[in-house]
Amino acid sequence: MLEDTPLEVIDEVLQKSWKAFHQYSKFSIKQRADFMRAIARALQNSSDELIKTAMEETSLPEGRLKGEKARTVFQLNSYADACERGDWLEARIDTAHSDSNPQKPDIRKMLVPLGPVVVFGASNFPFAFSTAGGDTACAFAAGCPVIVKAHPGHAQTSTLVADLIMQAAAECKMPDGIFTHVYGASFGVGEALVKHPLTKAVSFTGSYIGGKQLFDWGNQRKEPIPVFAEMGSINPVFLLPHKLKTSTVDLAKLLVSSVTLGVGQFCTNPGLILGIEGDELQDFISAMGNEIKGIAPSKMLHPGIAKAYAEKRAKALEQENVTVIAEAELPSSDHCGAAIIATVTGKTFLSNELLQQEVFGPYTLVVRCQDITEMTAIAKHLEGQLTCTIMATEMELSEQAEMIEAIKNRCGRMILNGVPTGVEVCLSMQHGGPFPATTDARFTSVGADGIKRFVRPVAYQNWPNHLLPDELKNENPLHIYRTINNELTKEKIGN
Amino acid sequence: MLEDTPLEVIDEVLQKSWKAFHQYSKFSIKQRADFMRAIARALQNSSDELIKTAMEETSLPEGRLKGEKARTVFQLNSYADACERGDWLEARIDTAHSDSNPQKPDIRKMLVPLGPVVVFGASNFPFAFSTAGGDTACAFAAGCPVIVKAHPGHAQTSTLVADLIMQAAAECKMPDGIFTHVYGASFGVGEALVKHPLTKAVSFTGSYIGGKQLFDWGNQRKEPIPVFAEMGSINPVFLLPHKLKTSTVDLAKLLVSSVTLGVGQFCTNPGLILGIEGDELQDFISAMGNEIKGIAPSKMLHPGIAKAYAEKRAKALEQENVTVIAEAELPSSDHCGAAIIATVTGKTFLSNELLQQEVFGPYTLVVRCQDITEMTAIAKHLEGQLTCTIMATEMELSEQAEMIEAIKNRCGRMILNGVPTGVEVCLSMQHGGPFPATTDARFTSVGADGIKRFVRPVAYQNWPNHLLPDELKNENPLHIYRTINNELTKEKIGN
Repeated sequence: MLEDTPLEVIDEVLQKSWKAFHQYSKFSIKQRADFMRAIARALQNSSDELIKTAMEETSLPEGRLKGEKARTVFQLNSYADACERGDWLEARIDTAHSDSNPQKPDIRKMLVPLGPVVVFGASNFPFAFSTAGGDTACAFAAGCPVIVKAHPGHAQTSTLVADLIMQAAAECKMPDGIFTHVYGASFGVGEALVKHPLTKAVSFTGSYIGGKQLFDWGNQRKEPIPVFAEMGSINPVFLLPHKLKTSTVDLAKLLVSSVTLGVGQFCTNPGLILGIEGDELQDFISAMGNEIKGIAPSKMLHPGIAKAYAEKRAKALEQENVTVIAEAELPSSDHCGAAIIATVTGKTFLSNELLQQEVFGPYTLVVRCQDITEMTAIAKHLEGQLTCTIMATEMELSEQAEMIEAIKNRCGRMILNGVPTGVEVCLSMQHGGPFPATTDARFTSVGADGIKRFVRPVAYQNWPNHLLPDELKNENPLHIYRTINNELTKEKIGN
Repeated sequence: MLEDTPLEVIDEVLQKSWKAFHQYSKFSIKQRADFMRAIARALQNSSDELIKTAMEETSLPEGRLKGEKARTVFQLNSYADACERGDWLEARIDTAHSDSNPQKPDIRKMLVPLGPVVVFGASNFPFAFSTAGGDTACAFAAGCPVIVKAHPGHAQTSTLVADLIMQAAAECKMPDGIFTHVYGASFGVGEALVKHPLTKAVSFTGSYIGGKQLFDWGNQRKEPIPVFAEMGSINPVFLLPHKLKTSTVDLAKLLVSSVTLGVGQFCTNPGLILGIEGDELQDFISAMGNEIKGIAPSKMLHPGIAKAYAEKRAKALEQENVTVIAEAELPSSDHCGAAIIATVTGKTFLSNELLQQEVFGPYTLVVRCQDITEMTAIAKHLEGQLTCTIMATEMELSEQAEMIEAIKNRCGRMILNGVPTGVEVCLSMQHGGPFPATTDARFTSVGADGIKRFVRPVAYQNWPNHLLPDELKNENPLHIYRTINNELTKEKIGN
């Protein structure tokens, strides 16, 4: 067990990070991208020990971890490309008009880094949403130094990845303090990090309780700071009747595989399935039941998560009018999560708040709505979600415009005839949603737009060209897109 | 006196606004822009009564108010243009790759409106930062309905402007509830508005106390919402020695005119001037003194502001080692703000927090720093600012890179050899800054980027082309810029 970083060291860490910020923020977007690519290389070339350690700490299978590592390498490289492309800088130039009255000065604006960013990684993604994951990559692209608090569930893995980052930092001659790795199994270290005056932003992936606490600490500071917390959701799936009729068994198989993928330990796990009472829904429920029985229970990330799953699931199942459809029948052992599906009427679901909360694990609740009106009412009633999925024919999609609109207002990503698990790393991805899915629906933690969490605009008024940052110089030496006098262009200014 | 809107009406207001949101959010960017232009026209063609009423309520002179009205008309029209241009929508498309493993789905993302926005206008800008001001214009561009709480200092003016908006709304066949005007001299109405579950964002321009309260209420909700509060700042001016030497008297005149403009009632009023001890600074101080004596005291916005100015100013002047340089000598009358400048050493300034706070009115404090090191130390020590101004030769600017960097980290806009008052309405403007200048330095309240406060991304995964919003359709019917497979383009997809 790695010991907590002593609280008196936190101040040293932030002082060093703050100093690094003043150097690193001036590094060009090319230098930042090169650093990110060096981390990607180090991770790609890492020894087998890394995967082995992660397997021991998280109980995740080798294939999954190798895939996640590859995803993390891709993420670092693709955000590096985005960093260098520079669209995210939002360079805006309005040139002077000396003939207007009053005279208009030359004003140029771009996004600059906020300062040291504290990252709290996720238990369920030891690579992609942890130490060298998306948050760290976005912060480095933005020009911010990073302090990672190792997740106690995989602190050894985190340490190995941190070493790789430090190796890349040395290779790229990064300033001392560009990256710091700290440990904290207790709340104290997290609190000290978030409340330190030199911390300028926080990102987090995990539970509602953890994320909301960090958000509150961030807002209660003398100088409040942005805390982006992704806190999961129940990711409802809406089954429309015609689609369900034409693909009853296929949909049941598809959804069971999504519910049970990775022992249900994804923040996009579909924990709620809404259908309309009738024969097709009964057939679908039976088909799901048949599928789920054959799913072998697997070890969950750590005993705490398995315990929480067992408790939350039991709590949900003991609610009035909740019926179990089927449960995995294969033998289970310690810390394993057995898949289970239950069902309830729309009326009961609407009246019982507990049923609307996330059960992290291979569990889903099939809600039998009376009709499309009740399904729409539930859509309107739902809390904020990362994703909503709609299984529908094109005809149904256009007929149910009101429900689709309600769904859109409740989530960050709408999937048609697919599954919410599997979060593509691309610019168009939105991994964020209205509270409580995240603390600020205006941002994402997947895709290069995630950089925007860690930057703010600064305008230069009446500045001499040669002293402007390269991004804003007349010559456009970085060849980036800029909005000049309201027109997006890569052109230079003047001759 | 207009009576407070009864608290029981607030729920009706939000219900209506929420209903309007579902209709208005689907209006095209062209329809939104046309509505904004109709408001601009109604304001432009408004009767003399509007200016007369504003003069009575705010004591601002006719010329200033006519100029501010024209600025508001320009603002509405230019944000309408930006709305229609659609760059702000951040349309992103990643097309499907069926040959990759796993297959990549088609994902398309754009910004969508948050929902009803509550606007709290400013006392000092009855037009440009109030009822039909920048916040309202940005919210309408975003696709959000607006609820304005009339500023108690100019509630009649606000009512007249609200009537113009309603007139434009009728002309453009906007949904009922697109705009609502409420009254509230007490905290109760504001609190009910911010805490109502259907309120999805808040914007505010005014004092620290007011803005911070709204921010806290917004964060304490069951579903926290973004509250963008612009709370003013002291807008420091850094005088570098060579520049000061070559233009001593000109700089004194320029700064006195900026300090006393509009009786100092601007959030960009330069309330702090930093120079380096020496003959030039003494000459500058004397020249400022001569100038200030001749400034006629004018009526402030309302008696409360005049009283607060007198009290805060007295409090600052009674601090140890603060010396008055000069005060306006012309006769003053009720509710007038007499200009005054005082001076103090850098050491005293650094050790006394009270001197670092805003005195809203025609007041400025000249801080005599020992040397450039002390000036840099003060730059590093300052709270977040809307603006910082540097008076320097190009040589000094490049020599003092460390200080410039410190200044950049403390503000949203850096002005070289100009004055901070006069906030240009253009895309490159940043009117926002680190806390306590605003509650979120990542946003601006001036310029079309202000729209981004009120929108969030939504991704459509695997959606059929004809059911996508026009912004994301293959054909690009709106001819907007979009990022397709990581490339910014106006091209359509396919043939």
